[in-house]
Amino acid sequence: MSVSAQDVKALRDRTGAGMMECKGALEEAGGDAEKAVELLRVRGQAKAAKRGERQAAEGTIGHYVHFNGRVGALVEINCETDFVARNEEFLNFAREIAVHVASAAPRWVSEDDVPDDELARERTIFEQQADSDKPEEVRKKIAEGRLRKWLEEVVLLDQKHVNADRHEGRTIEQLRADLSAKTGENVVIRRFARFAVGE
Amino acid sequence: MSVSAQDVKALRDRTGAGMMECKGALEEAGGDAEKAVELLRVRGQAKAAKRGERQAAEGTIGHYVHFNGRVGALVEINCETDFVARNEEFLNFAREIAVHVASAAPRWVSEDDVPDDELARERTIFEQQADSDKPEEVRKKIAEGRLRKWLEEVVLLDQKHVNADRHEGRTIEQLRADLSAKTGENVVIRRFARFAVGE
Repeated sequence: MSVSAQDVKALRDRTGAGMMECKGALEEAGGDAEKAVELLRVRGQAKAAKRGERQAAEGTIGHYVHFNGRVGALVEINCETDFVARNEEFLNFAREIAVHVASAAPRWVSEDDVPDDELARERTIFEQQADSDKPEEVRKKIAEGRLRKWLEEVVLLDQKHVNADRHEGRTIEQLRADLSAKTGENVVIRRFARFAVGE
Repeated sequence: MSVSAQDVKALRDRTGAGMMECKGALEEAGGDAEKAVELLRVRGQAKAAKRGERQAAEGTIGHYVHFNGRVGALVEINCETDFVARNEEFLNFAREIAVHVASAAPRWVSEDDVPDDELARERTIFEQQADSDKPEEVRKKIAEGRLRKWLEEVVLLDQKHVNADRHEGRTIEQLRADLSAKTGENVVIRRFARFAVGE
């Protein structure tokens, strides 16, 4: 069965699990949200405490422009209190995300932000690319793997930070979670803008 | 008669005259583009040399964040050559526009960017607000005057620079034209982004 993007989003909000996990669980549960939560719990994909539910309305604007002035980025990072918003580590994080956005040119903040039709289009392409000799089931798996790889290239939270030396190949989501744990507050990358001259 | 937004845009591109002037001329000319150009020429509203036609693909990214880190802006300013893109006056202009955007919070760069339905909605509101005792013609004029005022509040090029002391109440378009004249190149404010924390 096919599940709606809204249902997947609602399940994500409830459980904090990934988009693909939520979609899979909903499909397996025949669209039954309660059953899907159960499935995610069993698999340990539902987060016990969902920090994301606490309001993150404070924060800072991070910015960065490459020395040649041809590429720039602006990001909004939210936290829960003004205290953390003025914390040096938090401000550094905002700057590091802006540096990353300028270089890595993500298209969306999170997987939730990828428009349904764009996701469907990519999935179709990957399914068509998969070797037609293989059974349907195998082809679908290959396509899902490629879709995951694509998401890791275009979604900010799924990207590895461009400064690999400093961040040991960690994703932006991992860095965000680290900061959230350190500060004890929900940290949200709300939005970004990236301009490159003439692009 | 009513003229299409495309026709107005085409006339603007040809003549460099303002949106309202082009719309008026087209209406007066019964939709005949050649006649409308003529009308604008007669009135001196068509610019003799239309600098805007020359490609402006070089430039710089200007940025600014308020000292409290809660409001930030990013702008792309284009010019024609790398030489001007590295010119100090040009870079200052980019910064001044970013400062202005952060404070004045425009919604669009130029009148052309205001969506047709938004413009129609505002016009209807202003027409309804105008005193119903007055004749239709007078009410329309009052509404157009208010629409113009509204555009001066929400359109970047129509706004007066926030630093009135320094810029003597000149509009962003006037400052842009000054820089264009000084550098001898087409200068274009291509786009901007403005983030305010929690907004």
